[in-house]
Amino acid sequence: MKVIRQIPEMQNFSNVCRQEGQKIGFVPTMGFLHEGHLSLIRLIRKQCDVLVVSIFVNPTQFGPTEDLEKYPRDFERDEAFCRDEGVDVLFHPIEQQMYPSPYLSYVMVENLDKIMCGVSRPDHFRGVATIVSKLFNIVKPHAAIFGEKDFQQAVIIKQMTKDLNFEVEILTGPIVRESDGLALSSRNKYLNEQERLNAAILFKSLRGAQHDFKNGVNNPQEIIEKVRQSILDIPGTKIDYISLVNPETLQPVRRVHENDRLALAVYIGKTRLIDNVALGK
Amino acid sequence: MKVIRQIPEMQNFSNVCRQEGQKIGFVPTMGFLHEGHLSLIRLIRKQCDVLVVSIFVNPTQFGPTEDLEKYPRDFERDEAFCRDEGVDVLFHPIEQQMYPSPYLSYVMVENLDKIMCGVSRPDHFRGVATIVSKLFNIVKPHAAIFGEKDFQQAVIIKQMTKDLNFEVEILTGPIVRESDGLALSSRNKYLNEQERLNAAILFKSLRGAQHDFKNGVNNPQEIIEKVRQSILDIPGTKIDYISLVNPETLQPVRRVHENDRLALAVYIGKTRLIDNVALGK
Repeated sequence: MKVIRQIPEMQNFSNVCRQEGQKIGFVPTMGFLHEGHLSLIRLIRKQCDVLVVSIFVNPTQFGPTEDLEKYPRDFERDEAFCRDEGVDVLFHPIEQQMYPSPYLSYVMVENLDKIMCGVSRPDHFRGVATIVSKLFNIVKPHAAIFGEKDFQQAVIIKQMTKDLNFEVEILTGPIVRESDGLALSSRNKYLNEQERLNAAILFKSLRGAQHDFKNGVNNPQEIIEKVRQSILDIPGTKIDYISLVNPETLQPVRRVHENDRLALAVYIGKTRLIDNVALGK
Repeated sequence: MKVIRQIPEMQNFSNVCRQEGQKIGFVPTMGFLHEGHLSLIRLIRKQCDVLVVSIFVNPTQFGPTEDLEKYPRDFERDEAFCRDEGVDVLFHPIEQQMYPSPYLSYVMVENLDKIMCGVSRPDHFRGVATIVSKLFNIVKPHAAIFGEKDFQQAVIIKQMTKDLNFEVEILTGPIVRESDGLALSSRNKYLNEQERLNAAILFKSLRGAQHDFKNGVNNPQEIIEKVRQSILDIPGTKIDYISLVNPETLQPVRRVHENDRLALAVYIGKTRLIDNVALGK
């Protein structure tokens, strides 16, 4: 496995692969890899000749009061994981090279970036769309994969890829969960023992909603209210949002249909976690 | 010469060129070609194996009260010009394919887009950065060339290309002028006979400023004021802005140095024209 830190070296590598007719698959990450990331690596591995994983904790997607500094990092562990998974290139760029001063250019995906997570994280998706655009221009992948835990992010990336004519196939991989249903996330590390137990309520309440929908409940307010109550029954929880949306437009639905998405962001203590499920599954 | 109207066909063409190791040069235009465009075509022609010219009147760079509808178009004439210049591909996409509904993604280059032309045309450079990003992803050029008449545009494109890691070399070509000094522009067509004569004052006043700087005047206010007065002496003129700026940052200079840029936008009757010169030349 090659570890590349320089942007021009990554571009040259990908140019050569493309000239040789090899298909480049790409998994962009912020590192501190867990089984969720590894599942994405395994999914795209089958579909490409050369597999590139990037590790970059992207400062432009963190708000000024967010956890950029304390976001967990462990490059050596990540490197070992990637080697085990048969990754061909680990791209691990330097922050000053990714955002040299003066840095002025940003990609925005209007409307989709102002709802759901965009309400409490107003510049988050601008940072995401910008770094993914940059990485697409550096790694030059034929296909890239994103996890469904960040459901809104995946929708935004698909829209941006189509709008800006990036010739990149966008794949998604399902959420990987702990045995009690908690979605894997690097931020789960922030939870103390009690919070970790409490965090299981997120998926439990989403499962309840799936069950209710199967039993004929199709009023979104009714579904959302029940999820809200079951979460607030657990001490130390604070709800950021619970939304029941069309899976493509992310617009709230008036009546729930198969495949609509129930998504939420909830604080467990001070840790903000997100999760989502498709209804009718 | 190949005329391509479909985005995937253009992308496939460029993919094949790149696989064959051919260098793609690109001249993006809004059509109604004049000697200014042709000079850019000739400049980049020497440096590439395959020359692509695009013709697309980009709606997102026009304001709601601007001249999108009446902007001059003559595809057959443009096609003949391109054929004569040895252009390999004329890319002439369909508006609904470039901006399918819903279209949500935009590229912004902060700060640089709010000054000079950005004051009276607040969304103009967002539209420019967006369409150029799209065209870079469709045409996949190794090099692209922009005219210096749109000086601010060229600075913004250079910044965007660097920031977003497009692996495209940005070239610029000098302004081509009529015999009385008027910079060539598709919008000169809007001028009536008297306005056309009056329009010569733009370059005449800029030449005067170059002369004054050579004679030791380095106070930007003094230079700008003299340009303003000489333009306002001509009936039917209205000044949008006159700026004396650093050629890289576009920030106003406090004292003029060699190579600083004097740029202006002036209404001649109802037609808004722009022009600029480097001082010390």
